[in-house]
Amino acid sequence: MLPRGRPRALGAAALLLLLLLLGFLLFGGDLGCERRKRGGRAGAPGCFPGPLMPRVPPDGRLRRAAALDGDPGAGPGDHNRSDCGPPPPRPSKCELLHVAIVCAGHNSSRDVITLVKSMLFYRKNPLHLHLVTDAVARNILEMLFHTWMVPAVRVSFYNADELKSQVSWIPNKHYSGLYGLMKLVLPSALPAELAHVIVLDTDVTFASDISELWALFAHFSDTQAIGLVENQSDWYLGNLWKNHRPWPALGRGFNTGVILLRLDRLRQAGWEQMWRLTARRELLTLPATSLADQDIFNAVIKEHPGLVQPLPCVWNVQLSDHTLAERCYSAASDLKVIHWNSPKKLQVKNKHVEFFRNFYLTFLEYDGNLLRRELFGCPSQPPPGAEQLQQALAQLDEEDPCFEFRQQQLTVHRVHVTFLPHEPPPPRPHDVTLVAQLSMDRLQMLEALCRHWPGPMSLALYLTDAEAQQFLRFIEASPVLAARQDVAYHVVYREGPLYPVNQLRNVALAQALTPYVFLSDIDFLPAYSLYDYLRASIEQLGLGSQRKAALVVPAFETLHYRFSFPHSKVELLALLDVGALYTFRYHEWPRGHAPTDYARWREAQAPYRVQWAADYEPYVVVPRDCPRYDPRFVGFGWNKVAHIVELDAQEYELLVLPEAFTIHLPHAPSLDISRFRSSPTYRDCLQALKDEFHQDLSRHHGAAALKYLPALQQPQSPARDG
Amino acid sequence: MLPRGRPRALGAAALLLLLLLLGFLLFGGDLGCERRKRGGRAGAPGCFPGPLMPRVPPDGRLRRAAALDGDPGAGPGDHNRSDCGPPPPRPSKCELLHVAIVCAGHNSSRDVITLVKSMLFYRKNPLHLHLVTDAVARNILEMLFHTWMVPAVRVSFYNADELKSQVSWIPNKHYSGLYGLMKLVLPSALPAELAHVIVLDTDVTFASDISELWALFAHFSDTQAIGLVENQSDWYLGNLWKNHRPWPALGRGFNTGVILLRLDRLRQAGWEQMWRLTARRELLTLPATSLADQDIFNAVIKEHPGLVQPLPCVWNVQLSDHTLAERCYSAASDLKVIHWNSPKKLQVKNKHVEFFRNFYLTFLEYDGNLLRRELFGCPSQPPPGAEQLQQALAQLDEEDPCFEFRQQQLTVHRVHVTFLPHEPPPPRPHDVTLVAQLSMDRLQMLEALCRHWPGPMSLALYLTDAEAQQFLRFIEASPVLAARQDVAYHVVYREGPLYPVNQLRNVALAQALTPYVFLSDIDFLPAYSLYDYLRASIEQLGLGSQRKAALVVPAFETLHYRFSFPHSKVELLALLDVGALYTFRYHEWPRGHAPTDYARWREAQAPYRVQWAADYEPYVVVPRDCPRYDPRFVGFGWNKVAHIVELDAQEYELLVLPEAFTIHLPHAPSLDISRFRSSPTYRDCLQALKDEFHQDLSRHHGAAALKYLPALQQPQSPARDG
Repeated sequence: MLPRGRPRALGAAALLLLLLLLGFLLFGGDLGCERRKRGGRAGAPGCFPGPLMPRVPPDGRLRRAAALDGDPGAGPGDHNRSDCGPPPPRPSKCELLHVAIVCAGHNSSRDVITLVKSMLFYRKNPLHLHLVTDAVARNILEMLFHTWMVPAVRVSFYNADELKSQVSWIPNKHYSGLYGLMKLVLPSALPAELAHVIVLDTDVTFASDISELWALFAHFSDTQAIGLVENQSDWYLGNLWKNHRPWPALGRGFNTGVILLRLDRLRQAGWEQMWRLTARRELLTLPATSLADQDIFNAVIKEHPGLVQPLPCVWNVQLSDHTLAERCYSAASDLKVIHWNSPKKLQVKNKHVEFFRNFYLTFLEYDGNLLRRELFGCPSQPPPGAEQLQQALAQLDEEDPCFEFRQQQLTVHRVHVTFLPHEPPPPRPHDVTLVAQLSMDRLQMLEALCRHWPGPMSLALYLTDAEAQQFLRFIEASPVLAARQDVAYHVVYREGPLYPVNQLRNVALAQALTPYVFLSDIDFLPAYSLYDYLRASIEQLGLGSQRKAALVVPAFETLHYRFSFPHSKVELLALLDVGALYTFRYHEWPRGHAPTDYARWREAQAPYRVQWAADYEPYVVVPRDCPRYDPRFVGFGWNKVAHIVELDAQEYELLVLPEAFTIHLPHAPSLDISRFRSSPTYRDCLQALKDEFHQDLSRHHGAAALKYLPALQQPQSPARDG
Repeated sequence: MLPRGRPRALGAAALLLLLLLLGFLLFGGDLGCERRKRGGRAGAPGCFPGPLMPRVPPDGRLRRAAALDGDPGAGPGDHNRSDCGPPPPRPSKCELLHVAIVCAGHNSSRDVITLVKSMLFYRKNPLHLHLVTDAVARNILEMLFHTWMVPAVRVSFYNADELKSQVSWIPNKHYSGLYGLMKLVLPSALPAELAHVIVLDTDVTFASDISELWALFAHFSDTQAIGLVENQSDWYLGNLWKNHRPWPALGRGFNTGVILLRLDRLRQAGWEQMWRLTARRELLTLPATSLADQDIFNAVIKEHPGLVQPLPCVWNVQLSDHTLAERCYSAASDLKVIHWNSPKKLQVKNKHVEFFRNFYLTFLEYDGNLLRRELFGCPSQPPPGAEQLQQALAQLDEEDPCFEFRQQQLTVHRVHVTFLPHEPPPPRPHDVTLVAQLSMDRLQMLEALCRHWPGPMSLALYLTDAEAQQFLRFIEASPVLAARQDVAYHVVYREGPLYPVNQLRNVALAQALTPYVFLSDIDFLPAYSLYDYLRASIEQLGLGSQRKAALVVPAFETLHYRFSFPHSKVELLALLDVGALYTFRYHEWPRGHAPTDYARWREAQAPYRVQWAADYEPYVVVPRDCPRYDPRFVGFGWNKVAHIVELDAQEYELLVLPEAFTIHLPHAPSLDISRFRSSPTYRDCLQALKDEFHQDLSRHHGAAALKYLPALQQPQSPARDG
């Protein structure tokens, strides 16, 4: 333990004597210390003596060069085996560590989650994340952390858009845009009482415990305020090409992907003024920043070298195209943080990129649910809702045959809304979003669906973390899908044995941004004209405003993979007549759609009202504020039926649209269905759910709920899917 | 660096002086050292002074008790933050570490892979695994490591069955059986030149770098030979129930799930005699060992306490039912090794089991391909074949439009044969194994397939590590599947974008153990009688011995999910006549099966010979030593066709069986097909593969290969699947 303010009572002579003695004892006749092995400058010390002899170089230049030339332990706090000194003091067991990240947009939000996963995997301390975000990232990350429920992680959000004006005057050519400059304003943006913070780019991956990095704060001298790793490229040396004129920097300069900031000292030192002055002065001769905040940090440090504490290279191994990082990682035994600081990211050319990519993929595909690990011995405020959840789960009886159902109902799934870039539809009064949910085995439906439905969609996908990456590649590989910015994909991460069909529907429904929604299923292709027709019908019927109604879209099915999709009701009726199409579930479960009254529909010229009947489960268009699906129905069975009961109980009219239709395509039974099809327990549990549903219905609707009682007491074929 | 044999030149007085000085310097006026926080005994030192002052207790008892009572750093080499001393010296960067594991049977082989994954994830040193295995585990693990190709990992196998006689005389009640005792004979079984080894149970999971554990060897005194963690239960204290009489042990005794063995010293000390004498003597009064080797280790240690070096509790956190481990892990900041030492394994009851289970699942589901990471700066002998592979991969042109095909062909997939318990079929001269391959989206076919084919099957499954676990649960949940020990499942781990269909078929084919194989596809259900009928036909026709032939099983298809499977040829023909069945691919690709001559088959009473024709791809029965599938055909298209060409080129007769049939069930197009269906590049690449195939054919068969040239030059519809 080396407390930061320890008295330096002993004189230099005593210290020297001691070190000599210690050296003799430790290394005896056999100098065990591993000297620098490659490319080192003669005389550069290979054994870092640790905090006992802080090596503050006169100008900061020599040491940084040494760090790059193969001495990974060159920084004062390094903890590699090639060091001979003691490791830096680690933060105490439950000390709270603060991390700040600037994050904007859909893609950076995905990146930041991978970074956070790697950090959480190795961390052993409580963390407080300070996220400076735009509205998009905030929407995504707020929901994500809320549903992730990781113990001992606190998250605060700061509005990046409010900070924009402080940096928008700086011309910047870096791909990160304005947000790339925002790290400069952290000392004023973060709470005044916050003194220490680790600042990270979204494109870094941890390979070690962040507390080891935090420990390096202890090595700051009384005036140092910024801990940085040297740049692992020759960028700031200049002359990379003709007229290459970088911003001023000490030697190779520093990389700002990983920063230790003493906010308190920066505030005291007048940081705001300092960087602004420097930036303004440099911008008199330089047209713009090339590397965003990094150029300005380096220019300030060039002027005030006493501010910087150089960090060991392993804390920011930079994988840019012409990286010199190999000098660092070949000598080190431990990489601590990997930084994908090329605009090409994982496609960067580097002979060891496979190694680093594997490392990155580890966390990209890592099941984030597994990070809901408590920190033993560190009491922490549980995440919101976690305590009630724990209590509810604790009350479940593992011997209950429906235990899996109960547990699944209580499961809080991590939700990543708008997983891919998405442009919300422009506000239009009668617009309608197609809402559906799917898992991996239905991805191949998406292209056809996009061809049939040119309007906005909100789709919930039930995926593992690894599948989410496959999904991403699938979209990128499809020109049809990649072109559609009006389709919002919301990833709900898998957990538990039963398919949480209604929870998925609710996520997709909650994220729909138009005033109306078409509640569909992923195996259906709507008529090509349906989107336009629905909007027109909504307007004509005054849906929502004048009339509380659900518009029914009649459902059909084909049993053949290859069939020619009808372009009109006339064509559809012709196919129906020759037996190429059927009304939906005609053979197995006609009750599900019988009330739609297909015979009447054939002839209908205008919308007509139908009455609810038992087991009715039509596909409907309703206002966005319609009742939610009942999340107790997990697995398969009764999930849509219950929703229609609720609509009817709330006195929605059911109006069948005469020109609307949607057609179900064949598919093999999903694994989730097969698993339970043959189980009598499954049927019993479903009946129990239905009973509880009816109790709740009675509570809300009183005697009116009696109407549904017989329907709820009917046994249902377990072979049907939801 | 503290080399093991460093001269101890300084006298005790000098040492003491130095320590005093050092202590003053380090802790100054502010004794930063964190004292033990809970439950500690008064006077027990909370600050471990490190190797400079080894704390060897007089009888070993006190310290072990302290370790359990909340001082995780009590062992001499611990490296927790609550320590104040320097960490133990780590092995040098590229030092080879040796690990021995006893492993027998299918289930332990799966366990050991999870253990190895956790070890590889954190390791930074080259490893040499010494695996003591039965024939089953050796078969699995040899193939696994051969195809895994992890750099800087060497594997040696030792025949457990040859060692059995050395321990089979010991009566043992532990669930691990005879293999549980085998750690006792490691000093003689392992190579004589091997001096240090870490011995692990298959049910441990690493949460840290194994080199930290290896480093603890440096703390052994000159006579210590066995490093162990104290038992975290009261078992050896006795009196857990009436007549509970455990074997003798020091205090709580030691757990042998993690052992540091100085093999050299044990051999010198006459270990073989020592443990046998002790065991024989104890067995005079005790009926059997209860905890296998652990009872004997403890009895020996009780007698020779000088042998044991107690290790810090974090190196073997024991999750048995009544574990006291919480005392260890609540105080520690770092868990190093988790030990699932309850027969219930992950189902053990423990209030923190979710934490530990999450940790275990991390490695269970971890993509093992990501562990093919090189150790930077440690030159090591590449795994067999790795160099050629690297060269071949390096020669590929990333700009080549068929790059993905080339890369996929070269990919060496990790293969885990007989993933689940499997009993080889008894040797029968005309027995036939159904051979097929599948991925996750066809699991639901397995139950039906088992009902249709009562004989042995060899199935290759293309899965991720996480999917392999889902698969395992799927089988366990199905009584039909769980009952079939004659179905061998071989997991081939996913890697790359294209489905390696023929590599999968070859894995399944190579693992078939009967003299004949039925080369089928997973979407087909054979006639109920086919297994018996094939065996009779093989015998009658003298297949293989008298006749070099491939028996053709005519293929049909249904377009409906629900259909009544025909019980005879007569029923089948009736369904065909009413259009409920078709000959296979009748609508899309009749050429594929036209040579089978369905018209003739209708009437046939005896097998008849047919001639090869372009694009023929029947399902056939052949001797097991038939030609392999051509692995160059990855993705979809031409994969079976090429195999039939090869059979014909090798002059196999094609004999159609008059009573045999198999029926294809409908399914949605797989994702792999959809991905490429629309790609013209895909077609071009397939043509390039076909051209290369023909060049090879000409090389092997000379002018006879000319016959196939026109067929190979025909464009093929890209929409067909393999």
